[in-house]
Amino acid sequence: MTRTETIVKMVLDRWDASIKNCGTLLNNLDDETLQKEIAPGKNRGIYLLGHLIAVHDDLLMLLGMGEKLYPQLQEPFLKHADKEITQIPSVVELRAFWANQCEVLKHKFSSLVLEAWFEKHTAVSTQEFVIEPHRNKLNIIITRTSHLQYHLGQLQLLN
Amino acid sequence: MTRTETIVKMVLDRWDASIKNCGTLLNNLDDETLQKEIAPGKNRGIYLLGHLIAVHDDLLMLLGMGEKLYPQLQEPFLKHADKEITQIPSVVELRAFWANQCEVLKHKFSSLVLEAWFEKHTAVSTQEFVIEPHRNKLNIIITRTSHLQYHLGQLQLLN
Repeated sequence: MTRTETIVKMVLDRWDASIKNCGTLLNNLDDETLQKEIAPGKNRGIYLLGHLIAVHDDLLMLLGMGEKLYPQLQEPFLKHADKEITQIPSVVELRAFWANQCEVLKHKFSSLVLEAWFEKHTAVSTQEFVIEPHRNKLNIIITRTSHLQYHLGQLQLLN
Repeated sequence: MTRTETIVKMVLDRWDASIKNCGTLLNNLDDETLQKEIAPGKNRGIYLLGHLIAVHDDLLMLLGMGEKLYPQLQEPFLKHADKEITQIPSVVELRAFWANQCEVLKHKFSSLVLEAWFEKHTAVSTQEFVIEPHRNKLNIIITRTSHLQYHLGQLQLLN
């Protein structure tokens, strides 16, 4: 196993484990529980679920892997805080979005050739990338795994 | 910048940012607030702080960087759940432990030569490491950053 293979495996393994843990937790929480706030006055489970899907849709864009799957989630789950927008998809719909998105991401990630993980992501310019080569696609996975874990710790409180 | 330099920077940058965010949050929470539960019936802030210090002490061991700084925290914050042990250090003491430990880790991490991050950690055998080279020291940073982010999301609820 080359150094590059090893490091890509390390980062993707952590992402996969976080996605899997989140999926298991979501399966353990019924629809009614996901409507509850994770703590008094804080975000509801349904909001965090929508937020994660919206952020992972952005990830597709950042990696240059195509269009967002659910652009309608950007407004309620990224641009607004919980309860600011009342018309949001149901928990049942969000669960289906989550499951489908995880499959799409899995497929796209496994299709990427190894070296492509070290290419620049779409939010960094070619000039910037010359002096900041760490702003690559693999780094997007590192930061988004971090984000997922942050909210996973919160969702866990509904369990 | 070599591939190895780039990837070590990516992983350590994420660790550093998580540690910094946690430090900022702790500074924003007063001692009384840290005594509160993050959600009704869940862990208290003081427990999560002690837990993080205990886990980061384990990290020193796993990286072969010396003995635990605060071995007395293993029992109340790793082997037992919150409120099972009543005699625990004060928030003031834990804040001092956290600050000192962050400095020690920072110093030890920056002293490590680049290639050493890809050596095996202490919980994996030499035989295992031959076929599983991803079980290296850098991977310990990846998994512990993930752990830190999980609890950081929870501590944030006290803010």
